[in-house]
Amino acid sequence: MTRPLEALGFEVHAAGRTQGVDLLAPGGADALLAQVQPTHLLHLAWYTEHGLFWTSQENLRWVDASLRLLQAFAANGGRRAVVAGTCAEYDWVPGGTFSEWRTPLRPATLYGAAKLGLHEVARGLAAQEGLELAWGRIFFSFGPGEPEGRLVPSIARALLEGREAPMTHGRQLRDTLTVEDLGRAFAALTAGDYTGAVNIGSGERTELRHLAELVAAEVGRPDLLRVGALPARPREPRELIADVTRLREHVGWTPSDTLEEGVARTVASLR
Amino acid sequence: MTRPLEALGFEVHAAGRTQGVDLLAPGGADALLAQVQPTHLLHLAWYTEHGLFWTSQENLRWVDASLRLLQAFAANGGRRAVVAGTCAEYDWVPGGTFSEWRTPLRPATLYGAAKLGLHEVARGLAAQEGLELAWGRIFFSFGPGEPEGRLVPSIARALLEGREAPMTHGRQLRDTLTVEDLGRAFAALTAGDYTGAVNIGSGERTELRHLAELVAAEVGRPDLLRVGALPARPREPRELIADVTRLREHVGWTPSDTLEEGVARTVASLR
Repeated sequence: MTRPLEALGFEVHAAGRTQGVDLLAPGGADALLAQVQPTHLLHLAWYTEHGLFWTSQENLRWVDASLRLLQAFAANGGRRAVVAGTCAEYDWVPGGTFSEWRTPLRPATLYGAAKLGLHEVARGLAAQEGLELAWGRIFFSFGPGEPEGRLVPSIARALLEGREAPMTHGRQLRDTLTVEDLGRAFAALTAGDYTGAVNIGSGERTELRHLAELVAAEVGRPDLLRVGALPARPREPRELIADVTRLREHVGWTPSDTLEEGVARTVASLR
Repeated sequence: MTRPLEALGFEVHAAGRTQGVDLLAPGGADALLAQVQPTHLLHLAWYTEHGLFWTSQENLRWVDASLRLLQAFAANGGRRAVVAGTCAEYDWVPGGTFSEWRTPLRPATLYGAAKLGLHEVARGLAAQEGLELAWGRIFFSFGPGEPEGRLVPSIARALLEGREAPMTHGRQLRDTLTVEDLGRAFAALTAGDYTGAVNIGSGERTELRHLAELVAAEVGRPDLLRVGALPARPREPRELIADVTRLREHVGWTPSDTLEEGVARTVASLR
């Protein structure tokens, strides 16, 4: 994530648990913010344990940690904050293409509700403290470094080890970015002046079966992919796609990777 | 607040700073909840310092304290939570009558944003944990015990001491309940089964000048009331009234006090 920011001319101070900054601890990033006095804040941290993050009460702790971070950022002269939201803030029931100004916000999970509620409070704080606030709603992404339980690495890992890779029917249509494009999108959002919610996606419909087949072809074991071997999740929407009008017109960003490039890098990282 | 609940048959365990329970402290009400194992929770606590609460960053701490309280309530077998929201969650710009299902939620203050954001997160938590959650949006209230900087007690205090009581033009139309009716409304909401947001108000338009004149008459010093001596606040909406359709039809509650009864009790409490 630091490279696309540096490419746009930012002096980057990355902070995370590996840098000894624990946003959940009292004081969190206060010392770092007081020392660096950053003009821009890009806040992507959250509880993301695969399979657990939808319902974990850790989501509630991250609401508070995020508010404390934004407070400390404002108190140290910050000007512009960019925070990761989620497509799970939208009402998923009808499915389809989600628009920031037309689609109702009605999260079905604690994760989505925590992000949506945080955005409401953060907007009030930003307006009062004179901060710019942009809120990037992430759709689906894949790439090197993602948790191995997720679709692309779990299939790639199985096939690389010569095991069968079971999946659902794979007819779900998802808006998919490579993690590299996701990083570039957030860098562009940080460098720009757009405020408010904006979808971070490609706007393209990718069938998950197609994505899995690209992985199998890249590994060279299409014979081991078992489409339809797993039941689909109940009430899973067929189609979750970002309306990217705002992202294109107000942030001025479009993806540059193809799915094939992203799959090739992901598989290479697992070899 | 305990009397109207007791009148409805509840065994009430009141908790607040005067009972040694500090919801902002680590652990907050955990020990009390573990001991009492309440079926119902009525959460009215917040930062309310007159004149400061609109913008104080204490609002952010109360978001977290409220979520921790709801978590602990759920963890101890709680069934139904009722939480105080605010008319400041609505978009005040057009003014008029605010409806839970028609009026946009667009708070202009950190206080309103914190309450709105809390409601979003709390809804997600309640849905996941199987809690009923009702959210009572408070409009304006007055009565014995309110902070003396507020309209009714400040005028009453001045007149009782033989001083002039300056006020604005007083043409603002507000939805006003006595604190006793406010308590009865929340008791009814707690005892019922309505879930979701509901306005807590009278549905009646009270001109603040009329309310002030009632206070002056009750004190017996109408000669000292100085209507128009203070400038009105910029961008103050002329009319903030609750649509009480839901409160009447789904909670089944209507006020019982007249303004005159409320004013008489308030003035008596200050004599």
